[in-house]
Amino acid sequence: MTAPKRLSGVLAPVVTPFKRDLSPDRERYVRHCKWLLANGCRGLAVFGTNSEANSLSVDERMVLLETLIQEGVPPAALMPGTGCCALTDSVRLTAHATALGCSGVLMLPPFYYKGVSDEGLYRNFAEVIERVGDARMQLYLYHIPPVSQVPITLALIERLLKNFPRTVAGVKDSSGDWSNTKAMLDAFAKSGFDVFAGSEVFLLDNMRSGGVQKDITATRNVMQKYPMMAALKAVIAHFGRDPDWATVRPPLVELTPAQSKALMGELEARGFEMPGLAATSATAIA
Amino acid sequence: MTAPKRLSGVLAPVVTPFKRDLSPDRERYVRHCKWLLANGCRGLAVFGTNSEANSLSVDERMVLLETLIQEGVPPAALMPGTGCCALTDSVRLTAHATALGCSGVLMLPPFYYKGVSDEGLYRNFAEVIERVGDARMQLYLYHIPPVSQVPITLALIERLLKNFPRTVAGVKDSSGDWSNTKAMLDAFAKSGFDVFAGSEVFLLDNMRSGGVQKDITATRNVMQKYPMMAALKAVIAHFGRDPDWATVRPPLVELTPAQSKALMGELEARGFEMPGLAATSATAIA
Repeated sequence: MTAPKRLSGVLAPVVTPFKRDLSPDRERYVRHCKWLLANGCRGLAVFGTNSEANSLSVDERMVLLETLIQEGVPPAALMPGTGCCALTDSVRLTAHATALGCSGVLMLPPFYYKGVSDEGLYRNFAEVIERVGDARMQLYLYHIPPVSQVPITLALIERLLKNFPRTVAGVKDSSGDWSNTKAMLDAFAKSGFDVFAGSEVFLLDNMRSGGVQKDITATRNVMQKYPMMAALKAVIAHFGRDPDWATVRPPLVELTPAQSKALMGELEARGFEMPGLAATSATAIA
Repeated sequence: MTAPKRLSGVLAPVVTPFKRDLSPDRERYVRHCKWLLANGCRGLAVFGTNSEANSLSVDERMVLLETLIQEGVPPAALMPGTGCCALTDSVRLTAHATALGCSGVLMLPPFYYKGVSDEGLYRNFAEVIERVGDARMQLYLYHIPPVSQVPITLALIERLLKNFPRTVAGVKDSSGDWSNTKAMLDAFAKSGFDVFAGSEVFLLDNMRSGGVQKDITATRNVMQKYPMMAALKAVIAHFGRDPDWATVRPPLVELTPAQSKALMGELEARGFEMPGLAATSATAIA
């Protein structure tokens, strides 16, 4: 078996809905993923930072991923996050996602210990690749130092690419530092290594696409006044007319009513909309 | 059922041995824990930072804990770490350790998201306590901001103590900031809340116990020139004449031969010893 066709274009970081008892809400999750794909996303970055993935157990992530695919979301559109603090957890999630046919996996470095060496990080990723042992595996490294506090350096990418050229497929750079994104592009894009900018702010620099992009940036500037994951879920709850969507797991907390009211007021004043979101009907889950 | 008698005195942070294939080594683990208890430790802080606990899956931790108890380590001497990024993992580990009769659990805050609110952290700990729902549960909060990057504030402790006075039993303060340890003692010790200093450097300030303590501090100063977990394991490997003990899981790396030689030279020059460690014989594990 060979690697699946690579994803390109805009991938949506997908938030994870919880029921009021804080268990993952599979029905809302399936509906939301289908809505994203129906509205222009080329792929879905499930189980990333905005997904509260690290607030989910390994088993909870596996059940959600299986549910999506069983309910008709094409695995080729999926790039689940699979990087954990424990090597054995990363191996289990990565093998599972790869076997299900996901286009790739987005892998955090182990993020508990700080100041670890590139040698230690190299061994972590190399062990995962070797233990998964599946030619279909496509690894995207997840560089998000503001949250993980453990960076993915250019030297680490170079060593991994050299030793696992068929597996190491790209990076998501959520450093918020365009000069770093550019350095990754300059160093590795010619080898067919894909660099995803973690913020659509840089889509502007990259694509110079004009008016629509300006709207996105303005919306982002409004959103960034609030805690991001809680704000994203509050927006879906409001524009989807589905209040339960606002639920987050600790240690995150939902927006206060005042914050939510102020945010929706600003977005509505700008004409923001989420077409068709409120009209999605419940999908029965087997 | 009521809470077990509280642990007091010196608890050893216990490193976790791995086989060469990086799987947890249950035989060496049992032998080492018994050696620690036979050599003066009042209790064992298993699955802490020095234990590479976050490099273990939830199931790996549960198997190791069950093995210790099956092999005769008294659960009343155990304070396992049970705090994970995912609420459901923390609940599972805490319920398991409490049901096995462990004296307490040492709980990290969820540590992936940075800059989270005390409200979010309160909800995390409160949810764990309520979901475990076991009157025997004794919670020790684990404050180690240099690694977790998520502090446990005095205000958070106060709120938890007020609402769960029978469960919230203490804190391990590994901030390395004696003024913080003292503030915790001043604020809460009178309520019967136990404050464990995370570094034996502060035993000196606290106990003013003289010669032996000076030796410990000098040894610590030698050790601190090296990566801590790798150095601890190298010392056990050397003085226990058991080279496999040096194995660590990524992202950590073992000491280089040169580092190891230099460290052992310094320790031996100071007359450092680990009495009886080399003589411990293999324990058969069921």
